[in-house]
Amino acid sequence: MTWASIDLNADLGEGFGRWRLTDDEQLLSVVTSANVACGFHAGDAATMRRVCALAAERGVRIGAQVSYRDLAGFGRRSMDVPAEELAAEVAYQIGALEVFARAAGTRVSYVKPHGALYNRVVRDEQQAEAVVEGVLLTGERLPLLGLPGSTLHTVAEKAGLPVVTEAFADRAYAADGTLVPRGREGAVLTDADAVVERSVSLARFGVVTSHCGRPVGVRARSLCLHGDTEGAVALARRVRAQLEESGVRVEAFV
Amino acid sequence: MTWASIDLNADLGEGFGRWRLTDDEQLLSVVTSANVACGFHAGDAATMRRVCALAAERGVRIGAQVSYRDLAGFGRRSMDVPAEELAAEVAYQIGALEVFARAAGTRVSYVKPHGALYNRVVRDEQQAEAVVEGVLLTGERLPLLGLPGSTLHTVAEKAGLPVVTEAFADRAYAADGTLVPRGREGAVLTDADAVVERSVSLARFGVVTSHCGRPVGVRARSLCLHGDTEGAVALARRVRAQLEESGVRVEAFV
Amino acid sequence: MTWASIDLNADLGEGFGRWRLTDDEQLLSVVTSANVACGFHAGDAATMRRVCALAAERGVRIGAQVSYRDLAGFGRRSMDVPAEELAAEVAYQIGALEVFARAAGTRVSYVKPHGALYNRVVRDEQQAEAVVEGVLLTGERLPLLGLPGSTLHTVAEKAGLPVVTEAFADRAYAADGTLVPRGREGAVLTDADAVVERSVSLARFGVVTSHCGRPVGVRARSLCLHGDTEGAVALARRVRAQLEESGVRVEAFV
Amino acid sequence: MTWASIDLNADLGEGFGRWRLTDDEQLLSVVTSANVACGFHAGDAATMRRVCALAAERGVRIGAQVSYRDLAGFGRRSMDVPAEELAAEVAYQIGALEVFARAAGTRVSYVKPHGALYNRVVRDEQQAEAVVEGVLLTGERLPLLGLPGSTLHTVAEKAGLPVVTEAFADRAYAADGTLVPRGREGAVLTDADAVVERSVSLARFGVVTSHCGRPVGVRARSLCLHGDTEGAVALARRVRAQLEESGVRVEAFV
Repeated sequence: MTWASIDLNADLGEGFGRWRLTDDEQLLSVVTSANVACGFHAGDAATMRRVCALAAERGVRIGAQVSYRDLAGFGRRSMDVPAEELAAEVAYQIGALEVFARAAGTRVSYVKPHGALYNRVVRDEQQAEAVVEGVLLTGERLPLLGLPGSTLHTVAEKAGLPVVTEAFADRAYAADGTLVPRGREGAVLTDADAVVERSVSLARFGVVTSHCGRPVGVRARSLCLHGDTEGAVALARRVRAQLEESGVRVEAFV
Repeated sequence: MTWASIDLNADLGEGFGRWRLTDDEQLLSVVTSANVACGFHAGDAATMRRVCALAAERGVRIGAQVSYRDLAGFGRRSMDVPAEELAAEVAYQIGALEVFARAAGTRVSYVKPHGALYNRVVRDEQQAEAVVEGVLLTGERLPLLGLPGSTLHTVAEKAGLPVVTEAFADRAYAADGTLVPRGREGAVLTDADAVVERSVSLARFGVVTSHCGRPVGVRARSLCLHGDTEGAVALARRVRAQLEESGVRVEAFV
Repeated sequence: MTWASIDLNADLGEGFGRWRLTDDEQLLSVVTSANVACGFHAGDAATMRRVCALAAERGVRIGAQVSYRDLAGFGRRSMDVPAEELAAEVAYQIGALEVFARAAGTRVSYVKPHGALYNRVVRDEQQAEAVVEGVLLTGERLPLLGLPGSTLHTVAEKAGLPVVTEAFADRAYAADGTLVPRGREGAVLTDADAVVERSVSLARFGVVTSHCGRPVGVRARSLCLHGDTEGAVALARRVRAQLEESGVRVEAFV
Repeated sequence: MTWASIDLNADLGEGFGRWRLTDDEQLLSVVTSANVACGFHAGDAATMRRVCALAAERGVRIGAQVSYRDLAGFGRRSMDVPAEELAAEVAYQIGALEVFARAAGTRVSYVKPHGALYNRVVRDEQQAEAVVEGVLLTGERLPLLGLPGSTLHTVAEKAGLPVVTEAFADRAYAADGTLVPRGREGAVLTDADAVVERSVSLARFGVVTSHCGRPVGVRARSLCLHGDTEGAVALARRVRAQLEESGVRVEAFV
């Protein structure tokens, strides 16, 4: 499957108080969708406001990057949060971000779970349902950005919410189109040229070379760029430039 | 000055996770305005959702009880929060509560600062301006509930926001109409009969007997009832009953 | 197996700031070992100090009730905390409590994991090892209080740490001596007479009647009493009185 | 007054979870005293352990950098914490750090308040007394590092605790030997040569050129180096090299 256009998303506003992590200003000149941290794994209120203002100014879509309540673990600790509490916590985070999106003249356009919650709802039905319930509480039919074939997407569609698939140009894929788990050798690609090339292949043909050398189809309306690594901004710029040069329209999915 | 009608407000949802403080269910059958804790001094997301649902069901108005970020001190530790951060934190809390108010079919109707922030903005212009800026960020002209003559009210009115005055039937007043500071002898009244009588006097005539025995005028569109003390619910019920018996209409200010 | 003596332990100091949960003062007149919350699921510093002072005054042993960092979930949300972080967090909590134990003229005598961490280390070897590593970091050979046959105990013994077994007089046991999981019907006994009788049976004979009516052997050097339920103090008093009347010595295990 | 020797201290371990701020490894090769964050404004448990291990390895003294409980504000928000709570919070932090110091084969050697608390106890007697009480709770006669002439030092000496004075080579001094408040023009020196020169002058002669150009005497047994700015490590190295070249012994005060 090929796409005429692709969205570029990245996690932004992932500092907290005195701490900074992502170069929000630079990344906002590259991406079309900003996953803004909402205070549970990162993202103080003043940062949320600033990132929303910048995003709106540049026409970048704002998404709520919802997370477990876990500042100490940066939302990377999988947690058994009861469904009722998780749903309320998801809604709480979206609501808090919505204030700053509106203040900037726009709205929260989508939701993307962060870290351990992102991984958990790939398979965990109860938590996936809680996330969806949290989104439904907002009264908006916000799209859920996530892995193709994830339980989150199945549950969201059942509930009438739009879903948006994403791929990772810097992650290795298995032959069945799933991600090679972090920690395995070669799970994360560090060669910039390879990442750029794979971005184009994913965007144009919906195909990426798997871990074992075979082409594998990966549906993706959005590419996730990482913003918290050395050279992240430069790589993101190269990816975008190469996509545009290859005739791919880089544009938000909503 | 006399009022044909009076609002009764109380702090609700002031537990956190496993901890409960206020008998939300019972108080919601007495008050007309619920100051709902928004997660910074108390108030987990699931509790916020539950209290909003109950309040909406009973026609009780929902207000955002915004606070310093201080769970350990229950928002009672005055804090020098820079104005930009405080404004964003106020907006964040209102936005989070708004989700649950909307989910319950209603809206956040007003804002009331909590604890140390409440006391601080009686005089502190910078923080009062930050609170007002936080409210303005929401894009709604939400009334600010507070002490008559407070700097918060002056600043709010300058910014075009409505203000609502409140009085405390269980607190001693000085001859100039200000509250006798907690800690001074007799600052808090514990005699239930006296509290009931003062409630009626405040509501009907806008007058209360001061600490030194003289009548003093106190403007108040709303009476604040305390929900976290022994016998709070019973006393609140008596106050309401006596007000109604005295011909005072008990109704929300918005 | 029978015991000439039994320890009575309970979770104490489980408030946080403004919130109270356990009647620490009363319970400290009943138990011989106090599992004091250390700030991660409950337990502010001032409460820790107060509970340690009271415990020392009454000759009650002080144990560190270590937990996941989870105030919002009261430590009841199982969390995938990396081993290195968990070990450090356990040591941190014990160290913090040790200050107050020493200030009261005594020492932290043992460690008991709380809530989800308690349940997790019954089987999870990695987290059990992290807890044991955390204890070893303190340089003290502190006993670990937990379920007989738990992975935590196996790992602790391998590391040269003493272990202390505990039983629950108000929980149903399966035929194999394990606890019937909460949530199943009859998992928690609410009949006070039954709880008292089972306490004596556990203490004197190391035997309890299982869920299906057969006697089952349960090794227990300590009985856990619950302090956060209605009537908890009265029940704890009855248990202790009945144990003493039955000739069981109620005394701490260290 | 001149000193044959000077101590160099810096704030270390000021990250939290995913966030890093200070280059702990590099700074530990320059300073003689490490003010280690204890979890209230920064400093997760794993970082505290790592910094203590490194410090011990290099013979750098470990101090407890105690703070208000304020992760969001990095301990820079002055807070009205009741004395009893503040004392307990100070003790809690020192106790938590002590575990990691002992695990590394050493001990916590001193205490230095951080940020807003540091500034507050220069004048606030009640909070200064609370900090001293917190230190006394540990049962150790730990020296308090702070400004010469501060209320903290007066109170500490009255309580029998040693005090250690410090100076800042990169801060402007008024004619009376107090610091020019941050925010005023010229309050912070950014010229590296000037900072190096002032360090030597402070260490050798106890003299620094004031804001208005006159020499002013400043007692200082320790110089505070800042570790969270661009070029901080390089500057710290230059300061130490120049001090040693000028015949000043760089050594810890305990």
